[in-house]
Amino acid sequence: MSFAPTPGAPYYAVIFSSLQRTGDLTDYAATAARMLELAAEQPGFLGVESARSEGGLGITVSYWRDKESILRWRQHAEHLLAQERGRTEWYAGFRLRIALVEQERAFSAS
Amino acid sequence: MSFAPTPGAPYYAVIFSSLQRTGDLTDYAATAARMLELAAEQPGFLGVESARSEGGLGITVSYWRDKESILRWRQHAEHLLAQERGRTEWYAGFRLRIALVEQERAFSAS
Repeated sequence: MSFAPTPGAPYYAVIFSSLQRTGDLTDYAATAARMLELAAEQPGFLGVESARSEGGLGITVSYWRDKESILRWRQHAEHLLAQERGRTEWYAGFRLRIALVEQERAFSAS
Repeated sequence: MSFAPTPGAPYYAVIFSSLQRTGDLTDYAATAARMLELAAEQPGFLGVESARSEGGLGITVSYWRDKESILRWRQHAEHLLAQERGRTEWYAGFRLRIALVEQERAFSAS
């Protein structure tokens, strides 16, 4: 996974930080992959960046054109089911923050 | 590392996504740790969350009271030196996004 090809600001970011439970994570990886695939099909989706430290925090930042797109994705039927399994099976805890991106800078080594 | 103890919105997030170079990363880990320590001492710092997938993307999100605090930290002398080494030695590329957090939700499994 590389950088999200976001346009110039402004646009929205959903910052999702999570800690997995220890123990049974059946279906977690497949569902996470499916959600990335499904999110990418939604209107207003701009891209996603994701990282997880082994045994530690995971951070997934998805980028969206506007807040309406975020709210629509949150209510998507298959996504609602995944959210429910997240709370009941997979996550020890999470934080979800919705933020308006005001500035962006990019660097690439030459 | 766990979740940043942010207050209620609004506050600012600096979303820093990076890809490391392959090869010599001398001083990288020590400098990164030192920057987290130093950032935590700055006025307006609210917390930080960080994750790096092995061989892949790293995402560090730091949280700040206001944009002035972010600009002041960006200009901190020791931080400027680290930024320069980041560009010339450690990072193949990065994205830095400054965003106003408008909403936050927390979940903890009981």
